[in-house]
Amino acid sequence: MSKRVGHLIGGEILIEDGRSQAIYNPSTGEVSGEVCLASVEMVEQAIANAEAAYPTWRDTPPSKRAQVMYRFKSLLEEKADELCQLISEEHGKVLHDAKGELQRGIENVEFACGIPQLLKGEHSKNAGPAIDSWSEFQPMGVVAGITPFNFPAMVPLWMWPAAIMCGNTFVLKPSERDPSSTLRIAQLALEAGLPKGVLNVVNGDKTAVDTLLHSPKIQAVSFVGSTPIAEYIYNEAARTGKRCQALGGAKNHAIVMPDADLDNAVNALMGAAYGSCGERCMAISVAVAVGDEVADQLVASLKTQISALKVGSGLDNSNEMGPLITAEARDRVKGYIDAGVAQGATLVVDGRDIQVLGYENGFYVGATLFDHVTESMSIYSDEIFGPVLVVVRVKNLQEGIDLINRHEYGNGTCIFTRDGEAARYFTDKILVGMVGVNVPLPVPVSYHSFGGWKRSLFGDLSAYGPDAIRFYTRRKTITQRWPSSGVREGVSFSFPS
Amino acid sequence: MSKRVGHLIGGEILIEDGRSQAIYNPSTGEVSGEVCLASVEMVEQAIANAEAAYPTWRDTPPSKRAQVMYRFKSLLEEKADELCQLISEEHGKVLHDAKGELQRGIENVEFACGIPQLLKGEHSKNAGPAIDSWSEFQPMGVVAGITPFNFPAMVPLWMWPAAIMCGNTFVLKPSERDPSSTLRIAQLALEAGLPKGVLNVVNGDKTAVDTLLHSPKIQAVSFVGSTPIAEYIYNEAARTGKRCQALGGAKNHAIVMPDADLDNAVNALMGAAYGSCGERCMAISVAVAVGDEVADQLVASLKTQISALKVGSGLDNSNEMGPLITAEARDRVKGYIDAGVAQGATLVVDGRDIQVLGYENGFYVGATLFDHVTESMSIYSDEIFGPVLVVVRVKNLQEGIDLINRHEYGNGTCIFTRDGEAARYFTDKILVGMVGVNVPLPVPVSYHSFGGWKRSLFGDLSAYGPDAIRFYTRRKTITQRWPSSGVREGVSFSFPS
Amino acid sequence: MSKRVGHLIGGEILIEDGRSQAIYNPSTGEVSGEVCLASVEMVEQAIANAEAAYPTWRDTPPSKRAQVMYRFKSLLEEKADELCQLISEEHGKVLHDAKGELQRGIENVEFACGIPQLLKGEHSKNAGPAIDSWSEFQPMGVVAGITPFNFPAMVPLWMWPAAIMCGNTFVLKPSERDPSSTLRIAQLALEAGLPKGVLNVVNGDKTAVDTLLHSPKIQAVSFVGSTPIAEYIYNEAARTGKRCQALGGAKNHAIVMPDADLDNAVNALMGAAYGSCGERCMAISVAVAVGDEVADQLVASLKTQISALKVGSGLDNSNEMGPLITAEARDRVKGYIDAGVAQGATLVVDGRDIQVLGYENGFYVGATLFDHVTESMSIYSDEIFGPVLVVVRVKNLQEGIDLINRHEYGNGTCIFTRDGEAARYFTDKILVGMVGVNVPLPVPVSYHSFGGWKRSLFGDLSAYGPDAIRFYTRRKTITQRWPSSGVREGVSFSFPS
Amino acid sequence: MSKRVGHLIGGEILIEDGRSQAIYNPSTGEVSGEVCLASVEMVEQAIANAEAAYPTWRDTPPSKRAQVMYRFKSLLEEKADELCQLISEEHGKVLHDAKGELQRGIENVEFACGIPQLLKGEHSKNAGPAIDSWSEFQPMGVVAGITPFNFPAMVPLWMWPAAIMCGNTFVLKPSERDPSSTLRIAQLALEAGLPKGVLNVVNGDKTAVDTLLHSPKIQAVSFVGSTPIAEYIYNEAARTGKRCQALGGAKNHAIVMPDADLDNAVNALMGAAYGSCGERCMAISVAVAVGDEVADQLVASLKTQISALKVGSGLDNSNEMGPLITAEARDRVKGYIDAGVAQGATLVVDGRDIQVLGYENGFYVGATLFDHVTESMSIYSDEIFGPVLVVVRVKNLQEGIDLINRHEYGNGTCIFTRDGEAARYFTDKILVGMVGVNVPLPVPVSYHSFGGWKRSLFGDLSAYGPDAIRFYTRRKTITQRWPSSGVREGVSFSFPS
Repeated sequence: MSKRVGHLIGGEILIEDGRSQAIYNPSTGEVSGEVCLASVEMVEQAIANAEAAYPTWRDTPPSKRAQVMYRFKSLLEEKADELCQLISEEHGKVLHDAKGELQRGIENVEFACGIPQLLKGEHSKNAGPAIDSWSEFQPMGVVAGITPFNFPAMVPLWMWPAAIMCGNTFVLKPSERDPSSTLRIAQLALEAGLPKGVLNVVNGDKTAVDTLLHSPKIQAVSFVGSTPIAEYIYNEAARTGKRCQALGGAKNHAIVMPDADLDNAVNALMGAAYGSCGERCMAISVAVAVGDEVADQLVASLKTQISALKVGSGLDNSNEMGPLITAEARDRVKGYIDAGVAQGATLVVDGRDIQVLGYENGFYVGATLFDHVTESMSIYSDEIFGPVLVVVRVKNLQEGIDLINRHEYGNGTCIFTRDGEAARYFTDKILVGMVGVNVPLPVPVSYHSFGGWKRSLFGDLSAYGPDAIRFYTRRKTITQRWPSSGVREGVSFSFPS
Repeated sequence: MSKRVGHLIGGEILIEDGRSQAIYNPSTGEVSGEVCLASVEMVEQAIANAEAAYPTWRDTPPSKRAQVMYRFKSLLEEKADELCQLISEEHGKVLHDAKGELQRGIENVEFACGIPQLLKGEHSKNAGPAIDSWSEFQPMGVVAGITPFNFPAMVPLWMWPAAIMCGNTFVLKPSERDPSSTLRIAQLALEAGLPKGVLNVVNGDKTAVDTLLHSPKIQAVSFVGSTPIAEYIYNEAARTGKRCQALGGAKNHAIVMPDADLDNAVNALMGAAYGSCGERCMAISVAVAVGDEVADQLVASLKTQISALKVGSGLDNSNEMGPLITAEARDRVKGYIDAGVAQGATLVVDGRDIQVLGYENGFYVGATLFDHVTESMSIYSDEIFGPVLVVVRVKNLQEGIDLINRHEYGNGTCIFTRDGEAARYFTDKILVGMVGVNVPLPVPVSYHSFGGWKRSLFGDLSAYGPDAIRFYTRRKTITQRWPSSGVREGVSFSFPS
Repeated sequence: MSKRVGHLIGGEILIEDGRSQAIYNPSTGEVSGEVCLASVEMVEQAIANAEAAYPTWRDTPPSKRAQVMYRFKSLLEEKADELCQLISEEHGKVLHDAKGELQRGIENVEFACGIPQLLKGEHSKNAGPAIDSWSEFQPMGVVAGITPFNFPAMVPLWMWPAAIMCGNTFVLKPSERDPSSTLRIAQLALEAGLPKGVLNVVNGDKTAVDTLLHSPKIQAVSFVGSTPIAEYIYNEAARTGKRCQALGGAKNHAIVMPDADLDNAVNALMGAAYGSCGERCMAISVAVAVGDEVADQLVASLKTQISALKVGSGLDNSNEMGPLITAEARDRVKGYIDAGVAQGATLVVDGRDIQVLGYENGFYVGATLFDHVTESMSIYSDEIFGPVLVVVRVKNLQEGIDLINRHEYGNGTCIFTRDGEAARYFTDKILVGMVGVNVPLPVPVSYHSFGGWKRSLFGDLSAYGPDAIRFYTRRKTITQRWPSSGVREGVSFSFPS
Repeated sequence: MSKRVGHLIGGEILIEDGRSQAIYNPSTGEVSGEVCLASVEMVEQAIANAEAAYPTWRDTPPSKRAQVMYRFKSLLEEKADELCQLISEEHGKVLHDAKGELQRGIENVEFACGIPQLLKGEHSKNAGPAIDSWSEFQPMGVVAGITPFNFPAMVPLWMWPAAIMCGNTFVLKPSERDPSSTLRIAQLALEAGLPKGVLNVVNGDKTAVDTLLHSPKIQAVSFVGSTPIAEYIYNEAARTGKRCQALGGAKNHAIVMPDADLDNAVNALMGAAYGSCGERCMAISVAVAVGDEVADQLVASLKTQISALKVGSGLDNSNEMGPLITAEARDRVKGYIDAGVAQGATLVVDGRDIQVLGYENGFYVGATLFDHVTESMSIYSDEIFGPVLVVVRVKNLQEGIDLINRHEYGNGTCIFTRDGEAARYFTDKILVGMVGVNVPLPVPVSYHSFGGWKRSLFGDLSAYGPDAIRFYTRRKTITQRWPSSGVREGVSFSFPS
């Protein structure tokens, strides 16, 4: 066991002696290293470095700050293979999937390059007689991000590039499960010219999180994770006077209409349900079939496709689905499948007993499909975060919409149809923040913003895109009037020397 | 005692039999009526009415919703005298001051008229190949506002016009001290064509506030009041999953530079410190004089002007300053003056013993001026919310900026100078949300947004203006791709069955 | 003959003795008055008045300028019946149609009310080190508008409200065919508080137009009319250094797809083809049927509906279609029908011999329908500006798109379909500025902008909406840096007295 | 003579046999090569290539198009030395000045990287009941740029990056005086991945210009050059139905107020007047001194500094000023100096007889300073485009403003003052498009737009920045309503045949 992953503070990698936690390769089930779990003091050191770097960084013109992002984008592209390897080794997702993740992350860096345009305030001449007024969007100071294991490259890149381009300095607490790609990416930002202390990474657990939450020096917190933790973070932030956006869980439904292009829908669902082993907050985990005819065809087609799905090590790019993140995750998912059977759902494809040759200790669960699922079953109500797709049958679109709108989550959803009116009605009435029309994973592009509704997001503003600029800045409004000094009129020409 | 002020629910004025509280005329000290204090049931009835009105109102095109605002603006202008009379009778501010307040409120109505423009989402063609993506800013449902006594007309108009123009329905809980103008204004909105239930007003106290806060049907809360209550509201809202903006207290400093136009500065300070008897969250309560020369001149000029200030009944338009809102407020302010003297400040003008002929029972405190005030005195640290101006002397601008930046509040501030560089430096470095350059009360115009920093505002988004549109809506992002159906190509005119 | 319509200059109605032209009531064919045709001197007087009013108006805060628009909107609503009567008497359109026109005009006034928001410039803090930069959109000075007969109320309201809200002053040269409503509306603006000289109206012909075009004091010209005149205006404006937008002719096609809701399409086409007797630049004059089956059904349904169409005096609100504007227009339209027959089109319904009882001298042509029309026929290529709808048959959508894209005009178009993909493909590929999906007259709402492509619009910027704000202003970019003067640092405290 | 500069068409460098013109090294006066002057056929070939590349490029998602710009920026930075060498060799400006030019050009590339954000249209939900409306900013097709000798790298980069990022394809006709850097930069864009034919460069003279202007395939023309040519281009474009922005000449005034930081002003003026040998459209060529005291000091200081100015070969980076572009330019500038003397101005420093050792045949004129210049002199009225600064004396700011506002040009201007009110008054009242406050060359940063007023710019929209996005796109407004098809309701699942 060679690897010990530390922190990045003030431009230096710091390996702490204290507490640590094992890092696994989920594809093999073996321990590949360990990650330092930051002490309170280490987190405070990171904050102190961020605080020290702030005044100079704040006053650096945005166009100059942006130069770091341009170089950083180039470096990310150059080092893509290395980064994807790191992602796959610690997360388990297949390399091509890691590449997709990284690409999405790079797009957030691109958005951040546009900061001179994005930071523009509004200027009003003659708000009153000879009175002008304008708004500035000023940085806040030190802000923090806390990110989940499922996108170790992308989700941090949702946060800190926008935050530091706005003039803030940053402390990132990534997931302790797969910390290496996150840390490497942060190092690349320094290679790209980011001044030391502007971006700091602390690995850790609840100690680190709570230290960030309770520090009076942290002005804002962005979080992505599960709903209970999101809610805790949001309330703690409120209590301690921090701005907060906390993204939580999801249970994303796809409605399949009778007029849908079914081949297209099935292909889309396969990727959306089983891609990244279902460990995506935008994964489709419920297919809502409108009418039994559609449902029967859909289930049959999915069953056929699942049988051909290649499951195996994430590091083998010919695979389509890799393992789950941990043994605990694997067991939890299997428990949900057990419960689904017990609660009366029809188990069409059972992924519990999958064997991956040569990788018998990996954390695998095979693609699983349930039919005839009802609202009261835990496989319907809970976010399983695994490769389990459940089919619910409804009579018409309205019934499907009502079902979705009753669920506690409202992250993403999708409708498959060719009909303009059905699509418009659905997108209008659905209480979900990100909506696809024939697009199964309607993750907004980087120049729009990412945010669910209901218990999928705590906070006013969504992640990345235009909302992130607003989130990471404070509005300052200046109202200005100049009394005459005689200089203009030529009354007084002399000036104190 | 004839007047009993009730609620406006579902388009009807409801007078409740239960608890009530006296309404005073602060100019005379007499009780002029009483206001119902809503029961839990009454508040729930208001919420239920708002909920019932929501679906239809939500689907009314914004341009049609705006028609109500245009007519409402006309009605407010038509009824201005009546409204100002109500304001002055229950709040005590002088009629011309009430007119100013109403005018500012009307400007928020004007902004809300522009809702079709303001609600525009962003549309991206070809976000991917033949994939389009756009954002919609959808209403949230039922939202609530809780407003303070000091601007019974204006502050509610900061909130509900924008909120309902975004398609929400509203429950307003105004101050129970001076409820009549608020209620009358809401009635005018109904006269202007607002459908019943879209705007509801409940008068009340903590019972009403808590019922709103704990109702799962309320999606968002806007609050203006004191900082402790703002903090309570914000935390309760976070706990119960509501969006919240909570505006609290202030201690607004004006820096007077040696090059300032002193006559202009003194005139400005007189209005900013003593207007509305200091009961404004944007009142200037600290004058920071840069250099003793400026300080001496400033104090001398202010003293002269204060001696000429006309204090008396708010209903006499020749007066310049009226009474405080209650006897308790009067006593609290006097207590602060006592403390200032005790703590060693120089009391230049003492307003404690003012006598207003014919209005001996009114809640008056005269304009008060302290010099040589220091940071540790309670007259410096606390928001007095009365006609007390304190002068702090500093050596240079930097010292003044540091002083301001140390204060817990960061609502408004102002610099008096003729120098471009001093002004730019000040506006850049000051940790205050609303900044004036030779403008003593830099309240943003209605098409910008109002918000302090630090403990003056809890929440991400400011009040009124562009931020209000974002606050009162949920972002929904739609990503759309259309698979071929054969209709375009003419291949198949009949639809797959 | 009692009525002699004059000019509105400097706030006064001026009746000129010189040249004049008869005004007809097209419904009866009778002369109802005459209109002064302005001399060069009269136009120059109007320009001079606009010039004199400019400096004060320019410096009036936008929010104060907007107050005029709010009152003006109220007045237009109050006087709607009177205005529609004037429109119908001189133009001939049916009263309910005049009401629709006026309503659309009022919506442009509403947009103009939002000028404080719309005029905002962009502010960049730290464009360089301690350098700020912002844009202001300043008024241009005196600008002119030249408007057509077919919308005497609406088209002028596209122009001058936005122009004067931007701070310009205006000279309007409306159509001499139906000048009364235009003039009355301008008077209402003055009643609403518009200062004298800010808006001036001169009636006239080419003399007036050329005087405006050649005056060095006119900074910009907006024109709506026929393409040859639009082109002339645009070139003259270019030659004389004026900004110009010149909207010309149209030949708007509606594509009817095999999957369209045919009843809906036929109803829509009836209004779009025959409403206002086809005298609309957004009228649908070509129906493109995809497939013979659709074509046959479409023609049959249209024929049935045409037979029930009520044609008669515009002043009788039970009518659906009124007369054309002049006897010449009537004869020109009949000539086109003759030509259509001669060129081989199938005349399905012939409107040439219509008789309107009691209105035998009115300028009527009945609703006319051609089938089997081809690209080379003049009824296809030319803008007839009368109640003539031609049906062209194509095999598929692509053929229809190619047809439309070959036409010299590109104002409006529409597709009738239920298919998302067909609609998206059409709206993407069509070289037309305003596109409807199941919306036959896709006139943008007032907060979007109106503009055709190809020879339907000369100029960079569209009419009304956001583009109008850019059109009626000059961008000024200010870059500011303040050198130290010692005032901030406290080096020099004394200021010249 | 080895070098023969050709064209870049369809991704290939084409060397034409026909007409050509010598390229000089202005620092030595020697011929360094020759440039092909494109025939009509060659220009048409470029247009044809651009036309062929258009459909695919147009449909490439903006975010994908942007990838070319990111790589292009990197390449420009990598090749900066080579490019600056080319600029200096053919233009004569000193290398560090070439570097500044290139840097400004790169900033325009950065702005263009943000195209996904910049191209967003506006989306209105419920513009009417269940009717949505949105705007798209679509590319125009093939557009052209014609650029001047003075910024061979920067000015082309103002144009084509924005144009092609909007989805257009481009034909560039750069100056035939210094074509090599322009061409090399275009090649780098292809190296960065730009598809062949998207950007084409034709070198040439009036033949090339007129071929572009008269081609019906060119949709828009951007031009930067002298005012007479700008006017010609603009009128020809109007006549042939093209969108056009044509930037012409300038005579930029700097006002020096009595309270100005004079050292700062003098330093600023030295660079602004003599940098790039005065061959900049934003060069300051008139210093307006307010009061004789300021004037005397200013002239004395300038004289001192001019005496120390290092003039010599552009390729020697220790020099501060290089030669003019051609012998003709040198003689024209000397002629103006002669005229200034003849017309009675005080020649303070005479640059006519400068000798640059070792570079006796270079096209040098020394820095020249006139005092007591009046409005009627040709050295005041004309754009000299050489190192000649004239001082005009006025009594007060108003007189200075009036002087500037009377001049035919209105490109840039600047005020030197420390006084907030003087600056605000000046920036408000001055009829000039780009205004500096203590910033001598107020060239807007790339995310604002560049445009003069009066005869300095023909066209509605400014160059680069936000206006460029509007200029290079056509607005399309779509209005959409979906009639029910039964699919949503579940009434009919089969499609009408």
